[in-house]
Amino acid sequence: VRVLSTARDLQRRHARERQGLFVAEGIRAVEELLRSPLVVRGALVVDDGEHTRRRAIVATLRDRGIPVEDVSATDFASASDTETPQGILAIAEIPKRGLATLTLPNLDPVRLVVLDAVQDPGNVGTILRTASALGAVATLALPGTVDLWNAKVVRSSMGALFHHPALGCTWEELGSFLSKWEIALWGAENGGEPLSAMMQGASPVPRRVAVAVGNEGGGLSAHVRAGAVRLVAVEIEPGVESLNVGVATGIMLYELRRLS
Amino acid sequence: VRVLSTARDLQRRHARERQGLFVAEGIRAVEELLRSPLVVRGALVVDDGEHTRRRAIVATLRDRGIPVEDVSATDFASASDTETPQGILAIAEIPKRGLATLTLPNLDPVRLVVLDAVQDPGNVGTILRTASALGAVATLALPGTVDLWNAKVVRSSMGALFHHPALGCTWEELGSFLSKWEIALWGAENGGEPLSAMMQGASPVPRRVAVAVGNEGGGLSAHVRAGAVRLVAVEIEPGVESLNVGVATGIMLYELRRLS
Repeated sequence: VRVLSTARDLQRRHARERQGLFVAEGIRAVEELLRSPLVVRGALVVDDGEHTRRRAIVATLRDRGIPVEDVSATDFASASDTETPQGILAIAEIPKRGLATLTLPNLDPVRLVVLDAVQDPGNVGTILRTASALGAVATLALPGTVDLWNAKVVRSSMGALFHHPALGCTWEELGSFLSKWEIALWGAENGGEPLSAMMQGASPVPRRVAVAVGNEGGGLSAHVRAGAVRLVAVEIEPGVESLNVGVATGIMLYELRRLS
Repeated sequence: VRVLSTARDLQRRHARERQGLFVAEGIRAVEELLRSPLVVRGALVVDDGEHTRRRAIVATLRDRGIPVEDVSATDFASASDTETPQGILAIAEIPKRGLATLTLPNLDPVRLVVLDAVQDPGNVGTILRTASALGAVATLALPGTVDLWNAKVVRSSMGALFHHPALGCTWEELGSFLSKWEIALWGAENGGEPLSAMMQGASPVPRRVAVAVGNEGGGLSAHVRAGAVRLVAVEIEPGVESLNVGVATGIMLYELRRLS
């Protein structure tokens, strides 16, 4: 009952912050967690003996001496965040990450992502996965952004959150960090300068750029809009819908990598 | 009860295909639907009088003589596809779209997207939104792809499905279409040639390209793998997770547009 009650408790952000723990749910997420350096505290399984990958995970957990609690499907559902639970979740320690410990390579080009009150957990998870895959050195979450250790963010990051330095910070902390490391802040905004024009422009693209992406409905915050040296946009066809924030982030990171 | 029972029925793909109707749920989706050329047959609302945008939609529906059915929140939930319903949905006719009616501009560069058994409705909706925003002329769904008129695809396409020519076809129909219009088929695959190398390569990028993206777990089908003239990949960092299929599609379409 200990893992079960903790997992239920961790559905609330406040409990995650107080206890310094989070839940990774589903076969894929727990597999990624076990391949990561994070400390796993316990797991909850519905042991109907039927799923080969789930059985393999349970064997690994037991090998490592991690407590595994068998529960009924009903009990599992009470701690689950998914509509069709896969019958496995694990509790792990939220890694201690802070801007102070984030050191950047001296000479290499540097790309960062800043989440400026991005609220959809699926979008944030996809952005973390994208940032990790396209070589961003970190992803920094400003206030108003969904909790990075929310169960759906964890799941949709597909393991990226366990390796990629993603962490929350205030606007002031971000400002000091960017100036300390001489990183240019770009804001992604529909009405901004066309990205393709910037990439072909007369002035060279800076070697160190942080791209801030804003809230799905409201766009960038006043802080970021004021602090950004440029506002840029991926050009879209006239009269059509904007891009999904994860897709826009991917295109910007790809373009910055291509030219750096 | 007529709109309510029809909306419930349309939760099944078979019913959508038999009746030629689909459901658009939520304020944003219904607003986009009413701005589109599609024929709206009726709407279902929970009229608690509280939501301004919803009230405005109902007024528009009544102006146009479209039947609006007031129901209880419980009845609405029985027809709803969302966890937190916004109390409005509309039923509309699936537009008649076929490859035969898809004519392509003669001289302009042409980009298409092919969905090769992409099964996640959120991913398919995001791809439709992306294809529309980045100027793909059409999106073609091969067998095994989730139904394009599935409620979640409709919702996550953010209205793109109502304008962008998205339609299903068989592999044989696709093959004839591509050869008739002299379109090169590229397949997106993790192990493919690096996209950036292709874009800088000696051989010019063709003016007419269809990019096929595959199933989230299984990748491209044998048909597409055999039929593609090139297999291409967005390069990712070694040892990390793949890109989300919507993000990868966005990067490829952006790159193809940049060079065409």
